[in-house]
Amino acid sequence: MAIFALILAIVLAVFIDKLTAFSFVLGAVLSALAGYIGMMVATMSNSRTAQAARAGLNPALKVAFSSGTTMGMMVAGFGLLGLSVLYLTIKDPVVINGYALGASLIALFARVGGGIYTKAADVGSDLVGKIEAGIPEDDPRNAGVIADNVGDNVGDVAGMGADLFESYVGSMIATMTLGIVSFGFESVILPLVISAAGILASIFASFFVRAKKDSNLGSVLERGTWISALVVIILSYFIVDKFIGMGVFKGFGVFYAIVAGLVAGVLIGKITEYYTSDHFKPVKDIAEASKTGPATNIISGLSVGMRSTVLPIIVIVAAILVSYHFAGIYGVAIAAIGMLSTVSMTVAVDAYGPVADNAGGIAEMAQLEPEVRQVTDQLDSMGNTTAAIGKGFAIGSAALTSLALFAAYTEVAGLSSIDITDARVVSGLFIGGLIAYFFTAHTMQAVGKAASSLITEIRRQFREITGLMEGKAKPEYARCVDISTKAALKEMIVPGVLAVVIPIAVGLIPFLGKEALGGLLGGALVVGVLQAIYMANAGGAWDNAKKYIEAGNLGGKGSEPHKAAVVGDTVGDPFKDTSGPSLNILIKLMSIISLVFVPLFF
Amino acid sequence: MAIFALILAIVLAVFIDKLTAFSFVLGAVLSALAGYIGMMVATMSNSRTAQAARAGLNPALKVAFSSGTTMGMMVAGFGLLGLSVLYLTIKDPVVINGYALGASLIALFARVGGGIYTKAADVGSDLVGKIEAGIPEDDPRNAGVIADNVGDNVGDVAGMGADLFESYVGSMIATMTLGIVSFGFESVILPLVISAAGILASIFASFFVRAKKDSNLGSVLERGTWISALVVIILSYFIVDKFIGMGVFKGFGVFYAIVAGLVAGVLIGKITEYYTSDHFKPVKDIAEASKTGPATNIISGLSVGMRSTVLPIIVIVAAILVSYHFAGIYGVAIAAIGMLSTVSMTVAVDAYGPVADNAGGIAEMAQLEPEVRQVTDQLDSMGNTTAAIGKGFAIGSAALTSLALFAAYTEVAGLSSIDITDARVVSGLFIGGLIAYFFTAHTMQAVGKAASSLITEIRRQFREITGLMEGKAKPEYARCVDISTKAALKEMIVPGVLAVVIPIAVGLIPFLGKEALGGLLGGALVVGVLQAIYMANAGGAWDNAKKYIEAGNLGGKGSEPHKAAVVGDTVGDPFKDTSGPSLNILIKLMSIISLVFVPLFF
Repeated sequence: MAIFALILAIVLAVFIDKLTAFSFVLGAVLSALAGYIGMMVATMSNSRTAQAARAGLNPALKVAFSSGTTMGMMVAGFGLLGLSVLYLTIKDPVVINGYALGASLIALFARVGGGIYTKAADVGSDLVGKIEAGIPEDDPRNAGVIADNVGDNVGDVAGMGADLFESYVGSMIATMTLGIVSFGFESVILPLVISAAGILASIFASFFVRAKKDSNLGSVLERGTWISALVVIILSYFIVDKFIGMGVFKGFGVFYAIVAGLVAGVLIGKITEYYTSDHFKPVKDIAEASKTGPATNIISGLSVGMRSTVLPIIVIVAAILVSYHFAGIYGVAIAAIGMLSTVSMTVAVDAYGPVADNAGGIAEMAQLEPEVRQVTDQLDSMGNTTAAIGKGFAIGSAALTSLALFAAYTEVAGLSSIDITDARVVSGLFIGGLIAYFFTAHTMQAVGKAASSLITEIRRQFREITGLMEGKAKPEYARCVDISTKAALKEMIVPGVLAVVIPIAVGLIPFLGKEALGGLLGGALVVGVLQAIYMANAGGAWDNAKKYIEAGNLGGKGSEPHKAAVVGDTVGDPFKDTSGPSLNILIKLMSIISLVFVPLFF
Repeated sequence: MAIFALILAIVLAVFIDKLTAFSFVLGAVLSALAGYIGMMVATMSNSRTAQAARAGLNPALKVAFSSGTTMGMMVAGFGLLGLSVLYLTIKDPVVINGYALGASLIALFARVGGGIYTKAADVGSDLVGKIEAGIPEDDPRNAGVIADNVGDNVGDVAGMGADLFESYVGSMIATMTLGIVSFGFESVILPLVISAAGILASIFASFFVRAKKDSNLGSVLERGTWISALVVIILSYFIVDKFIGMGVFKGFGVFYAIVAGLVAGVLIGKITEYYTSDHFKPVKDIAEASKTGPATNIISGLSVGMRSTVLPIIVIVAAILVSYHFAGIYGVAIAAIGMLSTVSMTVAVDAYGPVADNAGGIAEMAQLEPEVRQVTDQLDSMGNTTAAIGKGFAIGSAALTSLALFAAYTEVAGLSSIDITDARVVSGLFIGGLIAYFFTAHTMQAVGKAASSLITEIRRQFREITGLMEGKAKPEYARCVDISTKAALKEMIVPGVLAVVIPIAVGLIPFLGKEALGGLLGGALVVGVLQAIYMANAGGAWDNAKKYIEAGNLGGKGSEPHKAAVVGDTVGDPFKDTSGPSLNILIKLMSIISLVFVPLFF
């Protein structure tokens, strides 16, 4: 990653300017640091949560949720701090675009590379351990087991954190850029102030996340989300009143845009829950379709996933239209700020899940009392739902952020319009959509390829280390981590480089140029968002359809429907954990690259 | 269908004008007639081809290919005839838009309804017959067997024909509309003349489609395609010279655009062959992935399908850019004319396949000599490849036709630009993409639902008709045909009505309007074309991966890889025969609807 960052920093220093290169490095360092600290805390909290679970549900929730809160505060705090310091020092929103690019680079590695890594480790160790060697999951004799555990933290904690860090920072920078042309200084610093209010609101709301023994965990966590949203709305009213005032846009236009964004974020989360939770019809339909075999399970899952795009897209379109109506294109950008203002709460709710999950594993291995496992199971099962909601939120915020960045790009590029009756723009639309497809195809295949390197290594260790199977010798866990990391990074090079190079190339080719690049960003945005929602929800629905059957429905574990559901779940793994989330990064990264490199296209 | 057509005709007569309503009815009648005659001839040619196969390969090819040629000539001849008569009588390209809408309506029923019907009948009769009752495929005791056979003709002959009839007519009308603003009468009738030249070229080329005993059938059929393309190019040179002349556009700009379209059509066919034939790497990769079970087969197939969009989209983009460069937006439309000029040859090559397929079935049932079956098998295996090529061509031509119709829409709507920095247009892009997703999800589920009605009926007949299983009583075939037809039509209502109503609604809602509708058409075009290529190729590749294994590779029939490949093939069935081709219709239909109803949006 350092090599890639160094190359980009040099390119920026030579072709753009040195301050942009500096902003870039700062963004990358802060995002990486947030991810690093978040993962450290998550890892340390695993056993502590298991221990706290001996005292009951609330103490365990407190430890796990605190760990998630740390990650959330890292993302929001570092993101806002770095950007504020940078802007107050340099005072040029164009130069600080580099900061967002730095955040994007880390997101690319954590979400795309991490996504390939985590599923490759998962598939590889399961295949050799469970199927070939016939030992249980998470058995310490399996050389790939540590690589697999590392993957859970990489994907769910660091990946999600870096993704939202990128959205958070990207939406602020886009809004600041658009703010210059709106009405100067106040509209430039408004996003920083709203975001600061969001952090305060999240801290306030986190005190309300506490459970009694018989509490419904879902509503406890939801309380946190709703309270933080409500507080942000109240604070925003006064902030907008002070900074922008009435009547500059249509009445309290900017305020309405913030509310539209916030509400859209919460709604998308609820819709995602409907499509991926086994309490509702879509997941039950997939389980039902498993009765006639794996093919109908797959068709049903693909269909549910595609259908699940309808409501979120309508919500996004409504947020766009409302915020545009009240406050123009600046309104669309500030809606993204509104949606992301409570990001620390969203990350907290999302990142507590893997901690609870691992706490359960530790309780099992350390042979704690069965009541402990009951508590952690309760926490974990809620964690699956919050993970799905978090994914929906990540896509929704990526969509609005990309749109804001796209608007900032057209502003900086001096394009008064991007006209799709122009053949170059239509070509750009097609190329943008195409990149999203290629990216998906590549990341999906990458999991298989990276897994096969790991499989070879685990087999080798079983074969060559004497006494391993009998538990007398230890496997070389580190080698497996190393090999899957290298394989994942290798698979990441092609899509990563393409996402950086193609927008710049399209911008530079005289036959295409700035307009075609605008089309490309539009095409990638529409196709990428649809595909990301579809894949994340299909994957989540397949997963829970399997769990629904395992809970004893339709024949339960080991039945024919269960076997069919396992096929769906396996297909869904790269859908929801690799390709789907990677698309969030793709659409944002290409927009930021275009924004940063726009000076070259004149 | 008549009811639906009647309602639309009345709506047109009341809200647009009576001549448009008349054009609409004429277009619908001629397209339906072409499909009807084509299916009649195809059905009659089945046994004749079997009989001719007793005399060798060339006589059999001659009969089968003549049958395909009939369909091809019906499509091109009726399409061109109706349009020419209409234009020469009414002399108003705007009024004759109704003609394209009529063609679209038939395409909707034949391709979408037909696509649901054919796969529902296929899945339904296989499931009860082969799996539950344990009798062979095509066994006359199975009540669904006739419904299944009917489906082959509906999907491959009538569906494909109506799809290309729509493209053929739609691209001509779009070009004529754009021709008015280019330079008047000559540019308006040029598409008619080029298309006429295409028919002559196809007739000429069809004389070269003859095989010797040891001929490579692929190259024999390809010869027809190449010769017809070459002749069109030569004729076009003189036609453009006479009608438009040098220097009006850039040099022989219009001529270059025609060539760009023609070459693009042939290239897309070749690329499709690469991705779906078992001679090449993609299909072999899917077969290889079947070794680790159905999940990896599915992931590999989805990935190949998505990756297969890259080259066709690049070809389409290149054709757009080249033709736009040389002859502006009129050039893009005339490129579609060039691509579709040899449509009669394309349909002929495509539609001979199902005839050869059914000839083989008849040879089997009539217990003809094994040499006969060898001949028909040779013809049939080539038919699978030409079917895949035909599907690629249908998508490519749908893409260019929709683009031309889109341009005609903006012209008639008086939009000087459709600006994607406008929030309404971005919203339109999202809604357009969303419709394509919903349409796909719905058609895929529809197959399952329609199949289940048929399954209930076949089971009932096995249960209630005494002596059926012993071959002493005949099943009621007609009821099965009736039931699957009704079920398919029922499933078609929602997507069909949506495709008609949503564009009109978006155009009428003041908050959205003409610009947002432009965005909608753009979004549907990009997402629809990508999705259509992906689904058609993934389906074709899964099919041939299964056949590759059945040919004795990787363990052959009955092995574990074969079982995995069967799962992929089953998922691929609605991909390639229902949802994928339906998207061609969707993008064209929505463009034509917008074009016809544009007077309402002022």
